[in-house]
This record gives sequence, C-alpha cells and structure tokens, in this order.
Amino acid sequence: MSRIAYVDGVYRPHGAAAVHIEDRGYQFADGVYEVVAVRGGRLVDEGLHLVRLRRSLGELRIEGALDDAPLKLVLREVIRRNGVVNGIVYLQITRGIAPRDHGFPKAARPVMVVTARQSRPANPKLVEDGVPVVTIPDIRWQRCDIKTISLVANVLGKQQAREAGAYEAWMVDGEGRITEGTSTNAWIVTADNQIMTRAADAAILDGVTRQALIAVIRRGGYNFAERPFTVAEAKAAREAFLTSTTADLMPVTSIDGQPVANGAPGLLTQKLRAEYLAHVAESA
Amino acid sequence: MSRIAYVDGVYRPHGAAAVHIEDRGYQFADGVYEVVAVRGGRLVDEGLHLVRLRRSLGELRIEGALDDAPLKLVLREVIRRNGVVNGIVYLQITRGIAPRDHGFPKAARPVMVVTARQSRPANPKLVEDGVPVVTIPDIRWQRCDIKTISLVANVLGKQQAREAGAYEAWMVDGEGRITEGTSTNAWIVTADNQIMTRAADAAILDGVTRQALIAVIRRGGYNFAERPFTVAEAKAAREAFLTSTTADLMPVTSIDGQPVANGAPGLLTQKLRAEYLAHVAESA
Repeated sequence: MSRIAYVDGVYRPHGAAAVHIEDRGYQFADGVYEVVAVRGGRLVDEGLHLVRLRRSLGELRIEGALDDAPLKLVLREVIRRNGVVNGIVYLQITRGIAPRDHGFPKAARPVMVVTARQSRPANPKLVEDGVPVVTIPDIRWQRCDIKTISLVANVLGKQQAREAGAYEAWMVDGEGRITEGTSTNAWIVTADNQIMTRAADAAILDGVTRQALIAVIRRGGYNFAERPFTVAEAKAAREAFLTSTTADLMPVTSIDGQPVANGAPGLLTQKLRAEYLAHVAESA
Repeated sequence: MSRIAYVDGVYRPHGAAAVHIEDRGYQFADGVYEVVAVRGGRLVDEGLHLVRLRRSLGELRIEGALDDAPLKLVLREVIRRNGVVNGIVYLQITRGIAPRDHGFPKAARPVMVVTARQSRPANPKLVEDGVPVVTIPDIRWQRCDIKTISLVANVLGKQQAREAGAYEAWMVDGEGRITEGTSTNAWIVTADNQIMTRAADAAILDGVTRQALIAVIRRGGYNFAERPFTVAEAKAAREAFLTSTTADLMPVTSIDGQPVANGAPGLLTQKLRAEYLAHVAESA
C-alpha cells in the first residue's frame, strides 16, 4: 500500500490523502492518469508515459499541469518516500476544483495526485500456465485513445471477467473485432506466424508496453501487422497474449473457455516476453 | 455555493469537504448521482429521483447505500443547513474506498456526498427568446441510461456548445438520430403537431423532468410519440425544446445556426412549460 501520497503539492500520509468533493475528477471523471512500472527503483519507459500523458491532457484541453521536469521529481520523491524498489507509481491529473457545471471552469487549475506501491512481478504460475480471457461487447465511449479516469465500463468488464473465472475480458466492437482488454492490450500470433495487434485507433489505448513491445518486435525483424482481428481469428490463433504495465506480457491460453491451439503458452509468446523483459532491464 | 456538505456520514464546511484519493469515484468514475430541484424549500419529484437512483446503483451493482428513509433525511438536512429555498440538492454515491484495482473490491462500502445550493430559476430572457443548440456526434458509452459520474464526454460536448455560442449540444447517434443534450433531454413538435422525444433506451438518460412532462402530456391528451428523430427532422420541426431539472422546459429556437420555424419559441412549448411548472408547484 502507498504510505505517503502526493496531493496537489503536499506529501500526505495515505489515510489523510484527500481531494475536495468538487474536484472535477470526482464529479465528472474529468481527468487523466498513468501507471508507470518501477523496476530496481527506476521508472520503466517513463518517456513514453509522459508523452502519452501530455497527449491525454491535450485532448481534454487540461492546461497548466506541472511540466515534465518537476513532475519527474514528484514521481521520484513519491517512490522514495514509499520505499518502492519494484512496483508501480500512479499519477492522476484532473481539471481541478470548481462549482459543479459541465463546461470548463474559468478559474480552476489542475490537481495532481501521485501514489506508489511495492508489488510483486506477475505471478510466475500465471506466466507458466497462461491465463483465460473471455470476450464481451465493447460498450465504452469512442475516445478510448485518451487515458481518462472515465473507467466505469472497464470496471464492469473486469468484474465480468473475474466472475467468469477469467483473468481479463477482451472487448469486441460492433464489427466483431477485438479492441483490447479492460486494462491490457490484446495480441495474437496467426497460423502463419504473424504477430498481430490492433492499430492504435480511437478504440484502444496505445499501451506503453504495447509500444515498447512493437519496438522490440521491429528490431527483431518478426512478421508483424497492426490490424484488428475478430473473435473467430483469435480463437483460431496459434498463440495469444496480452500486455500491460503491470502484467508485462502474459500468455493467453483460452478464450471463452476454448483453448488457444494446444492450450499451452506459445513459444513465440515466451520468446517475446523474454525480449521485452530484457528491454525493461535495459530501460529501467 | 454549498456552505455545508454531507460527506460519508458527517456534515462538513464546504471548504473542508473531501473524499479519499482512493475513492473509486475519483479513480474509476465508479459511482452515480442525482440532482433534485428544490422549490419553496421542497424537493420536486423526489420519488422519481429515488427510483432512478436505485436503478443506477442496481445496474452498477453498488450495494449497501443508505435506504430511502435515512437518505431523505440527509437531503433535507443539507437543504436546511444551506438555507436553500429555491435551488438544487446534489447527491453522489460511489462504490467506496479501496486499493486501486478495476474489479469490485471485497471490503468497500459506498460513500455518499450531498451538497445543496440556492439558485435562481431559469433566466426569463432565455425562456422568452429561446436558446440555440448545436448538434455533435454522440461519442459516449452505450449505457447512458445509467446516471453515472462518468461524464467526460458530456463535459467536452457542453464546452463545444458554449464555444459555438450555444446553450446546449444535441448529440447524434451513428444513424443520424438525436439522442439527447449533454445534460438535458431533446424534444420537437412536428409539422403535424406531434410532440416527440426519443424513447428511454440505453442511449439516453430518462430525465425526471422528461418523465414528469410525459405524464403532463398524457393527462392533457396531446398528440405524442416516444420515438427517435433525426437532425433533419429537428431542423424541419415546428417547435423544439429541451428539459432538465435545472432548465425546466426551455424553448430551442435554433439548431446549428438555423432557426426553428420562425425562430420564436413555439406556442405549444409555452403551453407545456406552463403546465409543467404547475405540476412542479403541486408536487413540491
């Protein structure tokens, strides 16, 4: 658990870390966030996270947040104060505090909250066995490329996955194509050994692990395409996996209760995971 | 401004009214809300609001919120402490406080916040002249029937309306049909004098003012249909108006810069407004 949180300029004990009830994050989900992995005390792909953060803020037109340099100092200070060596740092920036009214307030300034917590790497048993996913309709809004805190659909989807005994729910658009997981990106390896993930359109969040893995894949000269795939294609795949900051690269071994290929984690998946972890070790 | 707020069982001065940073309302938009009009110190259509609140909580499976009887006492106490005679009372219930994780937490209990503020009735000049609306694509999620605090798309839409010099944005679904405004329901009167508003499907919030007005219309024996209408139908309408708890029934006199009929508030609109306000006076 985070013991010390940064809240709008002040470091506070976790239990006393609070925001005003008229913070627009609380009343309108009017804010954005990032979760950055910490490995060996260092931030993994921090630069990619900060680029995405600026983009999210820009799309919502939230102006006046801390610049990168002081923001990076805050992230490090929260990590230090919580003694995090391996874990995550979470940051959230909202449009600020103002009397409730839908349009942008004239006088508000952004509020930033940062927490950090120690956590174990992905459960080795899950990595070894792979995880089940289920597919559900994607009912989210049409700007999932913005990393907003407007996550209630993702909450409902994740819960649906858990109640079905699955690790994640892969969401399916109106054309039967998988968009992404509720907090992860979705990947398959086709029968002819092509690695495939949906291109970063407005229907998915361009995950930082996704971006970093694509760089690894391109450097490795693998057969790769960014294109959407259907549920049927996923079920017919040779391999499947998912990516996220907290899961790294996790093999998917069943979809809607049906084994992917022989039901064991794929060899290419394992190879990519090893190469991705080598990237993490280098970049952190 | 609200001077005293109710926050999870305690009445606090507005400036000190805060919620924990791990309240799921703040991190996931995992909560619901209601805005109830107060007229002459009494709550307008409180019963309809409470029915809708229970439905929203049920759809999100948020369990353990205050029952109606104690909840009504809190609403009245917040109104009393803020000296509100005419205005609104706002209530928000989230899934509660838990370490950040998308799925439902095991141990959380709902957190309720209530504020109230005095406010003037709708600006008489706007009622007299009518208001302009613009149309924008509806990019929201597919469960707009649940009154969640996941409102960032509504925020962006309202801001777009204001920057276009409009009072409201009417959102348009993938089939060219208007769903609703960013915080109001949309209505037209057709050339053959039929009052029309979209049926309460998953694409719109079933406004309490909408429900109350439908009852008024049915009692009055007017020609009325609940069916969706296109932007073209709206622009060809004889009259148009919008409804909400704070706007009551407001004439719409232009759509995307084009006058509705002769550009003056419609006669039927004015008649319905008077009948709705009579209902408010009776029910409050």
